[in-house]
Amino acid sequence: VSSPLPSPPGQLFIAEIREQPAALLRLLEHTAEFESVGRTLAARAPSAVRLIGHGTSDNAAVYAVYAFGLLCGWTALRDSISLTVYYDAPLDFSTSAVVALSQSGATPDVVEYVHRARRRGALTIGVTNEPDSELAGAAEIVLPLAAGPERAVAATKTYVNQLAAIALLAGAASDRGRELADQLRRTAAALEGVIDSLEPAVSAATVPFSYVGRMFVIGRGLEFATAREIALKLTETCQVAAEPLTATAFSHGPVAALDPLFPVWTIASRDESLPAVIDAAAKVRDAGGILVASGSAAEGIAADYAFPVPDAPAPVLAPLLSVVPGQLFSGALARAKGLDPDRPHRLSKVTRAA
Amino acid sequence: VSSPLPSPPGQLFIAEIREQPAALLRLLEHTAEFESVGRTLAARAPSAVRLIGHGTSDNAAVYAVYAFGLLCGWTALRDSISLTVYYDAPLDFSTSAVVALSQSGATPDVVEYVHRARRRGALTIGVTNEPDSELAGAAEIVLPLAAGPERAVAATKTYVNQLAAIALLAGAASDRGRELADQLRRTAAALEGVIDSLEPAVSAATVPFSYVGRMFVIGRGLEFATAREIALKLTETCQVAAEPLTATAFSHGPVAALDPLFPVWTIASRDESLPAVIDAAAKVRDAGGILVASGSAAEGIAADYAFPVPDAPAPVLAPLLSVVPGQLFSGALARAKGLDPDRPHRLSKVTRAA
Repeated sequence: VSSPLPSPPGQLFIAEIREQPAALLRLLEHTAEFESVGRTLAARAPSAVRLIGHGTSDNAAVYAVYAFGLLCGWTALRDSISLTVYYDAPLDFSTSAVVALSQSGATPDVVEYVHRARRRGALTIGVTNEPDSELAGAAEIVLPLAAGPERAVAATKTYVNQLAAIALLAGAASDRGRELADQLRRTAAALEGVIDSLEPAVSAATVPFSYVGRMFVIGRGLEFATAREIALKLTETCQVAAEPLTATAFSHGPVAALDPLFPVWTIASRDESLPAVIDAAAKVRDAGGILVASGSAAEGIAADYAFPVPDAPAPVLAPLLSVVPGQLFSGALARAKGLDPDRPHRLSKVTRAA
Repeated sequence: VSSPLPSPPGQLFIAEIREQPAALLRLLEHTAEFESVGRTLAARAPSAVRLIGHGTSDNAAVYAVYAFGLLCGWTALRDSISLTVYYDAPLDFSTSAVVALSQSGATPDVVEYVHRARRRGALTIGVTNEPDSELAGAAEIVLPLAAGPERAVAATKTYVNQLAAIALLAGAASDRGRELADQLRRTAAALEGVIDSLEPAVSAATVPFSYVGRMFVIGRGLEFATAREIALKLTETCQVAAEPLTATAFSHGPVAALDPLFPVWTIASRDESLPAVIDAAAKVRDAGGILVASGSAAEGIAADYAFPVPDAPAPVLAPLLSVVPGQLFSGALARAKGLDPDRPHRLSKVTRAA
């Protein structure tokens, strides 16, 4: 039922954050489809899995580089759209698989890329929330995102479902589809708990950030996807210029820009890349900067604000939980600043820009 | 001869910007080596060229994705170091080539990555300014950067020589080494002219930027490398939080953060990706933001500040010229803010961070 009045600011955004456990369970109803496509993909033994997407979908693509590497031992890359669509470079796609990510399925250059890659012999898989979209028409294989209609302009539940879809596909391709589906089901339950327990704490912490204009968001490895997605939420919903950086890139230059009024958000998860994040956090403290930490190891790095989440049922699924504090924080900070995270300035749901 | 007194602020940085044409010519003295290695690389017909580097070297890696794609038709990617070095993912390197970029040759995780990739069967090529470095010891093949000693902490001449080394290697691998060397020689002459003509204009434009804390730097395609490198210079030498974005990523979220006090620098070069940059520039103007443009098409986009450079002798070499306005601007803005671009806060020449 549509209302004649616009919803209150941020109501759609927070409702979709809260809907994430249910959206994830909806995706898992399609596990058999993912298992079938995973077998097709494995039979192809691609020399490269080329990920394509913009914005939030590109952040999910960062995750996919790690998921395909860790679960399948495959080389995956966020491919350059412009090399194929604008420059028409003579790349060989014959041994490649393409995984194109678009919530709407309507992003023009993603659709055009898939057309070209398919003509050149790639196995093309589109993952979209819209089974009747142009992307679904262009790709040889379509997998559902099954997140349900996304009404807030800033994406949340479609991001978590994109991560889950990628993990499920990579798991299925390595003959572990059922195992991943079980772990994802337990992740949905953990998500429920994280949202309920963190929402009040995160909201209370936003007030001192009302006049912050810039931040860095630091992650490494799997959690670099989380750093990118939290930075994008802060930028688009709160008008904070939040730049995502790997812990190592941070130390190679941007550390020089810090001052005590420059907050840094770190994603601290218990995994092999944690020492690099701990090292970056120490540099932030040396510079006198305000330090925020989220993730399963958030309480171990002496941050000014820690938003811990539980360990995921498998290390490769940690990013599905560690993004939530950033989603909640962005919604709360936007409201504290009088902005509407459902309808950010100058953005619409489908970006038609080339 | 070392001096007992430190040099005046920014003197090393500007001297190395001015040295770039000479440094580029020094590299070209090694054309025969690049041709030989290019033949070895072509004989291997790699399924993927994996680029490795941090900071400025990672920006050169962005360029390499386009240079190998356009000149050789090969798939090149900026590989994840953490996937191999920290997570020990079971990737197949047997049909890959690795091009590792490090000015100092001493970046620990780059060296460790090269050791592992070589053990797993990759053809490993190190490109470094230091022929006796650990990187040179780890890689099967070493190519010189030949930029001469770099004394300023913020890199300039090594970046331009990295771009040239990549173009020369990709050209040699496609049997066009001589052609690229000739074009690079003409680029050195054009560089000389750009530096001489732009230095006064760029310096005069920096004063209104003295209180700017954040910027976006936008490029697409080949010039995304330029956007990243200019953003890094502004961040590390001027303490401006400058975030590089592709023109399309900008439209997928960050555009919402703009306001009239948020300047945006665009790289506008005459090539196939220019329409996306023009579209982004129009969005900046709509938001009332201050617009800076550099590149061969800088005068065509109605920017508040335009720093045009001539067309390069070949489109693939445009980034060697279009980065120069950003280098000069960073040096001048740092001085205007009382900062020392030779010795930015918290940075040293070799970053030991993992």
